[in-house]
Amino acid sequence: MFFEGSEKKAEILVDASKLNLLTDINDQFWSEFVECCHAKILSSISNAHCKAFLLSESSLFVWQDRLLILTCGETQLVNSVTHFIEQKGTDAIVHFIYQRKNEYFAQAQPSCFGDDIKLLSQYLPGKAYRFGEMDSHHNYVFHLDNDFKAETEDKTYELLAYQISDLASKKLTEPNLSTLEIRNYLAIDTLLPGFDIDDFVFEPYGYSLNAIKGEQYLTIHVTPQADSSYISFESNLNLIRLAPTILAILSPRSFDLMSFNEHDFEALLADHIDSSYISKSLVNEQLSNGYEVSFANFIRPQTQFSKPVELDISGDNYAL
Amino acid sequence: MFFEGSEKKAEILVDASKLNLLTDINDQFWSEFVECCHAKILSSISNAHCKAFLLSESSLFVWQDRLLILTCGETQLVNSVTHFIEQKGTDAIVHFIYQRKNEYFAQAQPSCFGDDIKLLSQYLPGKAYRFGEMDSHHNYVFHLDNDFKAETEDKTYELLAYQISDLASKKLTEPNLSTLEIRNYLAIDTLLPGFDIDDFVFEPYGYSLNAIKGEQYLTIHVTPQADSSYISFESNLNLIRLAPTILAILSPRSFDLMSFNEHDFEALLADHIDSSYISKSLVNEQLSNGYEVSFANFIRPQTQFSKPVELDISGDNYAL
Repeated sequence: MFFEGSEKKAEILVDASKLNLLTDINDQFWSEFVECCHAKILSSISNAHCKAFLLSESSLFVWQDRLLILTCGETQLVNSVTHFIEQKGTDAIVHFIYQRKNEYFAQAQPSCFGDDIKLLSQYLPGKAYRFGEMDSHHNYVFHLDNDFKAETEDKTYELLAYQISDLASKKLTEPNLSTLEIRNYLAIDTLLPGFDIDDFVFEPYGYSLNAIKGEQYLTIHVTPQADSSYISFESNLNLIRLAPTILAILSPRSFDLMSFNEHDFEALLADHIDSSYISKSLVNEQLSNGYEVSFANFIRPQTQFSKPVELDISGDNYAL
Repeated sequence: MFFEGSEKKAEILVDASKLNLLTDINDQFWSEFVECCHAKILSSISNAHCKAFLLSESSLFVWQDRLLILTCGETQLVNSVTHFIEQKGTDAIVHFIYQRKNEYFAQAQPSCFGDDIKLLSQYLPGKAYRFGEMDSHHNYVFHLDNDFKAETEDKTYELLAYQISDLASKKLTEPNLSTLEIRNYLAIDTLLPGFDIDDFVFEPYGYSLNAIKGEQYLTIHVTPQADSSYISFESNLNLIRLAPTILAILSPRSFDLMSFNEHDFEALLADHIDSSYISKSLVNEQLSNGYEVSFANFIRPQTQFSKPVELDISGDNYAL
């Protein structure tokens, strides 16, 4: 069963004195907000800094002055963004970023990145970039073109693992796994000591986790099925330092690391990514909004011939 | 300007005693045949064995007992195949193979491989495989599931070069290039001594070449524009042996080699692909139709960070 794990991601930064996202907006609004892209709120956790919603398709994090939403599958996240703008206006918005990865199966998506930014540009005129090559892993970034300047310590990280090992895929597709079993398998106690955690196991498989601790957050989304496996980590924790632990568990054939404002990106890669992985893409840019964006794709070279995948023509999934 | 260079490819093998493709079918039929997928015949060359048509989107080769058609862009090649079957029936067809590569921009295609084989299966029931990973270069192969057994010496090769060097891209997008200048740049005299050649330079750029000599054929299709460059070679000449010459000229960042019935594929790669390229995918299968199919994707590791591509939001091409 194919599922498109790759997420679209939107970040809206606001002037909290004009619109405090934690105190001026209620859960009913967030519920409608995510329904605009056909997602649903499953549960939430919160602390003094942040409210984290686990969604039927990924996650929504809300701080006083910022929201971050990631949605996967065939959701059309831009529709949530335009709903937000139509309901709340643009006066309080100090910055906006929209991101989209290449998908496994782009033709099944209701829109492409070009369609998305054509729509968004009507509300929030901006600039757009592609990090990574067209015929390989890449990540599109669109941002509002205004005088916003990100603080240099405003750092976020993504680790996106593709084609996890057969062992990891088998484990994570076992029937009736509990959240505890998956937490143990993913070494969540080691990765996230002392975090509040909200997680969910989907039927027949798939797993999402939100974790918060003070101002720190991390979210994990697991699409474990063999052949189209995809596991994403997004956090303001340094995921390059955590990469060795994650890669040891999942052993992906390919992975991306991306960061906003990790100024030691290159040195961290050298220190933490072992030489069994080869860098296929390395891209870096200081954007005009103050974010230094870095992207790297790593692959594990193949030395043995494998068999092709025979497609089940009798089913509906043979496009894959 | 983006153009989808990746081809769809169909091969129809017939019993020439029932339907001789060279003598029983006239050019008017081939003209209608290619128009079914919105391509046009530009010119043709022929010898005692083969007639080679240069198309507005790639090439058609016709032998007594076989036809090979490759079409690029947004052509829907399956419509030509179903036209052939509706006009000529299936009695004379002894085998059929349909192939499709991953595209740069799959969402712009009128159909995906799954749609194509759903249609084809109504006429020619078969089996389908994917050579290469979903999140990387891959090639779908569908073949009629009958008792046909290919001869072991029935060998064909493809070399598909992606992201050619800036130098090669600049040269091949120069205005008003002549066919002779492109032939010289591609070292056609060295690659194809003594071949009859038919070639065409497209506006504003792009180049196609058909070459025949006895039973030998080679076709080249050049989409040279930076960022989405793609150059394909398809031949019954051993393209693995020719790869060093081709790679030295184009210096692609990534390329695929594929073969039907090159039984020394692995050894030839070891002998002819230099160590600046790393094998990302290696796939091999002995199909039930007698063809041993091999696929390899090579990449050149990156060690330096490059800049992202800034997309021109004012234009129509910013999806790319």
